[in-house]
Amino acid sequence: MSIFSVKGIRLGTTAAGIRYTDRDDLVVIECQTGTSCAAVFTRNRFSAAPVQLAKEHLNQVAPRALLINSGNANAGTGEQGAQDAVRCCQILADNLNCDVSEVLPYSTGVIGEQLPVKAFAQGLPECVKSLSADGDAWARASKAIMTTDTVAKLFSRKFTVGECEVTLTGMSKGAGMIRPDMATMLAYIATDAVIEQTVLKSLLIEATGISFNRITVDGDTSTNDACTLLASGAIEMPTIAMGTKEYEQFATVLNGLMQDLAQAIIRDAEGASKFITINVTGAESEADCLAVAYTVAESPLVKTALFASDPNWGRILAAVGRAPVSGLDISQVSIKLNGLAIVTAGEPDAGYTEEAGQQAVANTDITIDIKLGSSTEAVTVWTSDLSHEYIRINAEYRT
Amino acid sequence: MSIFSVKGIRLGTTAAGIRYTDRDDLVVIECQTGTSCAAVFTRNRFSAAPVQLAKEHLNQVAPRALLINSGNANAGTGEQGAQDAVRCCQILADNLNCDVSEVLPYSTGVIGEQLPVKAFAQGLPECVKSLSADGDAWARASKAIMTTDTVAKLFSRKFTVGECEVTLTGMSKGAGMIRPDMATMLAYIATDAVIEQTVLKSLLIEATGISFNRITVDGDTSTNDACTLLASGAIEMPTIAMGTKEYEQFATVLNGLMQDLAQAIIRDAEGASKFITINVTGAESEADCLAVAYTVAESPLVKTALFASDPNWGRILAAVGRAPVSGLDISQVSIKLNGLAIVTAGEPDAGYTEEAGQQAVANTDITIDIKLGSSTEAVTVWTSDLSHEYIRINAEYRT
Repeated sequence: MSIFSVKGIRLGTTAAGIRYTDRDDLVVIECQTGTSCAAVFTRNRFSAAPVQLAKEHLNQVAPRALLINSGNANAGTGEQGAQDAVRCCQILADNLNCDVSEVLPYSTGVIGEQLPVKAFAQGLPECVKSLSADGDAWARASKAIMTTDTVAKLFSRKFTVGECEVTLTGMSKGAGMIRPDMATMLAYIATDAVIEQTVLKSLLIEATGISFNRITVDGDTSTNDACTLLASGAIEMPTIAMGTKEYEQFATVLNGLMQDLAQAIIRDAEGASKFITINVTGAESEADCLAVAYTVAESPLVKTALFASDPNWGRILAAVGRAPVSGLDISQVSIKLNGLAIVTAGEPDAGYTEEAGQQAVANTDITIDIKLGSSTEAVTVWTSDLSHEYIRINAEYRT
Repeated sequence: MSIFSVKGIRLGTTAAGIRYTDRDDLVVIECQTGTSCAAVFTRNRFSAAPVQLAKEHLNQVAPRALLINSGNANAGTGEQGAQDAVRCCQILADNLNCDVSEVLPYSTGVIGEQLPVKAFAQGLPECVKSLSADGDAWARASKAIMTTDTVAKLFSRKFTVGECEVTLTGMSKGAGMIRPDMATMLAYIATDAVIEQTVLKSLLIEATGISFNRITVDGDTSTNDACTLLASGAIEMPTIAMGTKEYEQFATVLNGLMQDLAQAIIRDAEGASKFITINVTGAESEADCLAVAYTVAESPLVKTALFASDPNWGRILAAVGRAPVSGLDISQVSIKLNGLAIVTAGEPDAGYTEEAGQQAVANTDITIDIKLGSSTEAVTVWTSDLSHEYIRINAEYRT
């Protein structure tokens, strides 16, 4: 897969020894003057120090640079953590000769340990020296932001908006503590298109709503979730405005790329052996569809059955039955497993056989279709199974 | 521990070969004429056929007998499951010479397989022949209702109500699919005291609210939860009436016994190595306290950290921060781990050390105290850790 450089956006990476040894853990994304930036952040009330500071800076001025580290989340670190986030931004601002408020900080890793600011001071000059716009710089950055991820998540598209060729390249990280509530920890998407901040925000919110906000590994919303979209405006083209054909052209590609990034997190979910798509339709509201979808997606019993390739559909039924929605009419409920009818209008489907069920869940990709009624509401949520490996990873995370 | 017989209540047990071989799986609890009965059932909308029938029968007439099987839940079995439940009740009614509506059915085990009615027909005569009031009959019955349980759960008390000696004996089962919503699958408590049905119901609802409805293993509410309280009235005593000193005396012992039964389920939770008590205080409402308690109790990341005896308190913080409550003020939040302050007024506690943290979580019994504010609201929820063994049990359950 080709990773296209985004004109106006440069990335630098270095090994600062924040927690890991022998690997990159520090990334700078530098954007040219005039770049628009939109971002969405975790709704976790214990949001990390960098999340709070990034929000504050973004409200003041368009950023010149993003500063990202892995290995330490700078979350649950109190007043010292807040000061350290400012200090790290200041170090980068000094290196780039910009104001501290023009730097947005992001951290991911262990919660509850203080940030080693000295490692930033030592690592940032080299990181800045390595700034480059090319695809390799994106590839190195996408590896440097990994924590328990086993693969880097990086996608790139070239496409036409109006009569101009536009580039969109993005990366994400995440494998556990994944139930994003606005965005997942962490995603960076950049384009060279010309888009003003308010329009960019609209595009980001729409895309987040059907990508990062539709995935769950373990239901645990991180303290550090952040998804950032940059538009450098480095190419010659008319500004993309709300409600135009060009907006739709851009949105379609952005939505697809962000779904790729979100789904890559699920495919790399901690210990996952299955990629599970849950489609829920027909409830009275979208919120009810989502409540049923997440109840099934986060049921430990559904997830362990699918890990075992066991078509134990009674567990899906039990999860639907306990979902926090009112007015669920059992006689309207139909459920299919990879296309195989298991429950039809509330009754076990007459055509179901255990053999067919086993065949349906043998695949690594499993789709569960749940019809709750006849409304046109429809949602899709992606999740993973729950395996021994998830337990091992999360029991040993800090050792 | 002595298990006291309850005058007026007899239990029979047999091996009917419903699913398991070489073990008892069928239980009859016979109550003498005049016994009062109160029961609470699962709120799962896909409630099992026996749950629906037991509710219907209980609305018509006081029961003469309870019929319980393990190995098959008769849930998700549609119209045939409903008919089979009636047929099994009829077989027992014929054996006891009573009406079919005087039998309450209960099933636990695999969901989505039809009930082998023939096994009931073959097993019930011997089961009835074995009816006995003594403690051994309770012990055999408490074993026969087990599924993934590794120990039987049986408690018994003798105590004084007014001037009369009263007996209370109860058993429960459950180890997984545990997030009772009314009661857990399954609990039977019997007394020889004289209590009318409406008073009995009031006692049961109060006790359930602070016992079975305060435990969670995996957040999965079963389709078959049921908790039944019997009062045979077999001893000579004044009727226990609402609002009296005698009511309080009885309620205190009943609440304690039901908490013992509920906590025994958590101690025997699938794969559990820790018994975790979560106390949440100070939110605006009891519902908010509970929402925070259950978010922490059901966080896979908190549970895997405690399994590893890792004081990774950042995960507790992150769970509190994502709990679905409004108006959470971080600066009011304090958290203790087995008495060790980890967060005080929203800041990491200055006195915390990693060594002290490790010592705090080394125990098998761990208490997490979460203070959200200054209100007098307070709740307690009990849960278990999440281990490799949970995955193994639930991945292999049907194999």
